[in-house]
Amino acid sequence: MISKNQLKFIRQFEQKKYRRREGLFVAEGTKVVGDLLQRYQPKALFATSEWLHAQSSPTDADLFEVTDDELQRISFQQHPQQVLALFPIPEAPQRWEGGKKLTLALDGVQDPGNLGTIIRIADWFGIEDILCSPETADVWNPKVVQATMGSIARVNVYYTDLPNLLDTLPSDFPVYGTFLDGENIYTQQLSDYGLIVMGNEGNGISDVVRQRINHRLLIPDFHQGATADSLNVAIATAITCSEFRRR
Amino acid sequence: MISKNQLKFIRQFEQKKYRRREGLFVAEGTKVVGDLLQRYQPKALFATSEWLHAQSSPTDADLFEVTDDELQRISFQQHPQQVLALFPIPEAPQRWEGGKKLTLALDGVQDPGNLGTIIRIADWFGIEDILCSPETADVWNPKVVQATMGSIARVNVYYTDLPNLLDTLPSDFPVYGTFLDGENIYTQQLSDYGLIVMGNEGNGISDVVRQRINHRLLIPDFHQGATADSLNVAIATAITCSEFRRR
Repeated sequence: MISKNQLKFIRQFEQKKYRRREGLFVAEGTKVVGDLLQRYQPKALFATSEWLHAQSSPTDADLFEVTDDELQRISFQQHPQQVLALFPIPEAPQRWEGGKKLTLALDGVQDPGNLGTIIRIADWFGIEDILCSPETADVWNPKVVQATMGSIARVNVYYTDLPNLLDTLPSDFPVYGTFLDGENIYTQQLSDYGLIVMGNEGNGISDVVRQRINHRLLIPDFHQGATADSLNVAIATAITCSEFRRR
Repeated sequence: MISKNQLKFIRQFEQKKYRRREGLFVAEGTKVVGDLLQRYQPKALFATSEWLHAQSSPTDADLFEVTDDELQRISFQQHPQQVLALFPIPEAPQRWEGGKKLTLALDGVQDPGNLGTIIRIADWFGIEDILCSPETADVWNPKVVQATMGSIARVNVYYTDLPNLLDTLPSDFPVYGTFLDGENIYTQQLSDYGLIVMGNEGNGISDVVRQRINHRLLIPDFHQGATADSLNVAIATAITCSEFRRR
């Protein structure tokens, strides 16, 4: 049985300010919740008896058995699948320790779909950390969590002041960005560690971050003559990560 | 002035059967319509006086000056931009003549957003033709046309029976597809011509097309240990095209 108060409590997680205040986010469905359970302890689980009976590991979470109709009422999905979970939002580390790995930095990526896709790409290419500027879309939005299709369980996403963080790095630390006047990514020497900055859909990388980029890359286009339009930011991220990893 | 009949006429282009019956598609906004005008003759233009006065080339199209309010009523967009145009749907050639180029074949890509993104990717990488199975989403859907951001003006999209077409090709003609058990795309020799087949979001490439693929590729993942999930089809298309073109 779902009470009115529970329904209200869950629905509020559509809004960022409630997610932050409660320190919780919503994940749904057997795949996404299943992936998250491999790494995180949930705070609460609202699930059908079928799902609950299929679980083998014990949990400290509050458990609520719900009917399909009740799940439909609390869900943020059109077609809810057996379970809705509340997980604590992972805390950002005090100090970024990713200096010897390849890390993505998102400087104002606005579209939740692009953010979800970028997290899947990071997961595919074994990139463990994504640093986001405060202007970047909120990854704990229920829609973004679902769009990651479980990759959010394997990729750490932190919000931080990017210019500040970049200022703490040694000056020879590789910071990459893609630009229309950069060097051909296919022929450049690429480091196996460093930061890859991806910018806003409309405006690209902000001026203050741009100044701190010391490796300017270009994904060349292959049209004949026509004006080069830009690539979608998730597509550019995929091609860039592919180039770094294939070497 | 827009009449009720004109409004009804334009709105029907949301439905595929009317687009096919009339042989027309809707494009909107200064960018997409501007790109299409460089190559195609429109049938009709519904535009603000501002847009009409900025045009320098004469046109045989029916011209209708509309107010912003009228444009809002006929538009398929949330924020219409100055112009809505009706263009004839380009006819597929009787015979596919693309044998010496790199061509994409979409075998049941269902999501209109993925289709729009793939057309942008083709445009970026100078791929002129995309062959689609009849099960693939309809590119002339107003939402897909907009999602291409003008690339539809430079990329030819044809619907055809893929297995039939594949049967007409010489047996040594390169037909590529990506599979979880294919050969590493980063280290394979790739031809500078041939067909690259991309499959359905859920089911991949259909059995009947799969049998006709003679080069099975793999985009390797770089996670440590975790189960490999699949890449979104547009992301896989981008990485594959990037690999073919960088050589």
